[in-house]
Amino acid sequence: MKLPAMEGPVCPLPLSHHDKIVLGHGSGGRMTKELIQKVFMTHLSSPPLLENNDFARLRLPDGATAQGKLIVSTDAHIVKPLFFAGGDIGRLAICGTVNDVSMSGAVPLYLTASFILEEGLSLETLDRVLRSMKEAADEAHVQVVAGDTKVVEKGKADGIFISTTGVGWLPPEYTIAGSEAKPGDIVLISGSIGEHGIAVLEARGELGFETQIQSDVAPLNHLVQSLLKAAPNTHVLRDPTRGGLATTLNEIAQQSDVCIELEEGAIPIQPAVLAACEMLGFDPLYIANEGKVIVIVPPEEAEAALSAMRNSRYGTQASRIGIIRETPKKRVLLKTDIGGTRILDMLASELLPRIC
Amino acid sequence: MKLPAMEGPVCPLPLSHHDKIVLGHGSGGRMTKELIQKVFMTHLSSPPLLENNDFARLRLPDGATAQGKLIVSTDAHIVKPLFFAGGDIGRLAICGTVNDVSMSGAVPLYLTASFILEEGLSLETLDRVLRSMKEAADEAHVQVVAGDTKVVEKGKADGIFISTTGVGWLPPEYTIAGSEAKPGDIVLISGSIGEHGIAVLEARGELGFETQIQSDVAPLNHLVQSLLKAAPNTHVLRDPTRGGLATTLNEIAQQSDVCIELEEGAIPIQPAVLAACEMLGFDPLYIANEGKVIVIVPPEEAEAALSAMRNSRYGTQASRIGIIRETPKKRVLLKTDIGGTRILDMLASELLPRIC
Repeated sequence: MKLPAMEGPVCPLPLSHHDKIVLGHGSGGRMTKELIQKVFMTHLSSPPLLENNDFARLRLPDGATAQGKLIVSTDAHIVKPLFFAGGDIGRLAICGTVNDVSMSGAVPLYLTASFILEEGLSLETLDRVLRSMKEAADEAHVQVVAGDTKVVEKGKADGIFISTTGVGWLPPEYTIAGSEAKPGDIVLISGSIGEHGIAVLEARGELGFETQIQSDVAPLNHLVQSLLKAAPNTHVLRDPTRGGLATTLNEIAQQSDVCIELEEGAIPIQPAVLAACEMLGFDPLYIANEGKVIVIVPPEEAEAALSAMRNSRYGTQASRIGIIRETPKKRVLLKTDIGGTRILDMLASELLPRIC
Repeated sequence: MKLPAMEGPVCPLPLSHHDKIVLGHGSGGRMTKELIQKVFMTHLSSPPLLENNDFARLRLPDGATAQGKLIVSTDAHIVKPLFFAGGDIGRLAICGTVNDVSMSGAVPLYLTASFILEEGLSLETLDRVLRSMKEAADEAHVQVVAGDTKVVEKGKADGIFISTTGVGWLPPEYTIAGSEAKPGDIVLISGSIGEHGIAVLEARGELGFETQIQSDVAPLNHLVQSLLKAAPNTHVLRDPTRGGLATTLNEIAQQSDVCIELEEGAIPIQPAVLAACEMLGFDPLYIANEGKVIVIVPPEEAEAALSAMRNSRYGTQASRIGIIRETPKKRVLLKTDIGGTRILDMLASELLPRIC
């Protein structure tokens, strides 16, 4: 019986930056192993990955009890282009999932990453993305513990897609969720909004003018843990990503069956973002963020929460932007600078595709 | 300030099977929520998903102690075509990850699923895939607890890609891993090999002849749990997927620093698979399986292990196929039917792309 497995092109040794991804890198055979060892493991090595099983065996944190909860979150990342001012798909893939896990109040511990690579992708590009993932994971103190790599034919994907899943551990004292906002609660935001979406648009060359706007993509877990020490009765944490601040607040208003009233003048927006939005006809309230968190706390903890955020690296511009009202239920209202009030609806369809 | 968010096309209500995926379904706004509620949640609803947070809050199983371990595994699924005899990308995405978690000896509990959809995909296709995921998840007794949906432009993906991540719980008594094979151990396989790869090739119209071969894609967790009751000192469990039986055994021989000696005549292969491989010039030892497990056990537990598998739905053809030897280390040897011995190497590059 023939052994066609041995007849394919053999991967050149050693892999160099001039090489490109070929279908053989997704075979599960020798070329896949070489790619993993020489490219992926250079950056993303961890004790569970080094065991070379198809699974990672993980410890719960010290002091974990049966009353605690496991927190799991997943996200696919398809941002275009792969690199933009302030970040890239690798940093986004780590931070997006670290942040989603953090929004429960949990400490993120472990991440998995599954890659879909397009035939023809340069190893140099892959290497840059992996290095960026490693830096973001180190910053967030999370380990990448399991991964997978698939390759599809040229034209059947767009460079790199990365799906990450995060696992965290939630101590029993927190019950933070989108349904927990209560009338009288104060609405805070950890900083200025709209930077990520505009930075990606600029990287695509779609702005038609130049800006200095950098994406805010960042891991928020350390900020969230500081915040929770200062404001342990926090009701809601949520990061306003796709759909922006307005869409995320609409979700919370619906889940909690309350009204969220915002002060337009209190919402921090960088002048460059405001200018770009005005030229494009966009509303920054609907632009994606990747390093901001909405915090809803009882009024007696609002000052402590704000102060904890302002002392944290990614929260220096934290601001009080609104309040929870009883009615009109499931609505987000914006009190404008000129004294009016308008309803902020949810984003309807697509504003900016492939932003994350 | 304009509100372009409100100006996009509004998704027709209700969603019908004639509809197609558009970029707005990935916006994170109203259309995304409608797609999730009306299509995804119809099939994949679970209590954590119904909470509508960006994370799932999960309980450890009753009786879990700090000595146990969390097991996590991830896989991207890019099979082409989406549907094939015996399965589809949805069943594959559930079973592939359930099986990887099971290979540690753990009971899989929870899955996350992240979807990358190509603009223009029909909702009917998506619906069929989700229904199939639901059936496989029910069969495996696992819950889909978190998900994500992204949409890319037509031509930037290929229908549907699905990344799944599984979470399981491993009681402290098992230390099953690819590094645990010991000289004298017996090598078992849960059934006949090569069906998945050939079934996918046939679905692509690449065989040039017709077969009745069905993919073996199946969740193996119940089989594994029965097996471990009968053979609690099992050393290695691994599913021979990409790269097939020969590649997977090579990985184990390397990790355990042993020789694996196979009896060619003992390896179960359906006559139709053998015939297809002979016509195509393929070696079935390198063809992907999606519902088979290699079991390596101490000799005194081999009979019990075999018998437990044969009493399980997906193990009726379980067979003893080889033995672990001390030397030549890191080698897989095949004792052929005609009395010779040949070295089975690892799959070098690509045999059959997009098989899983």
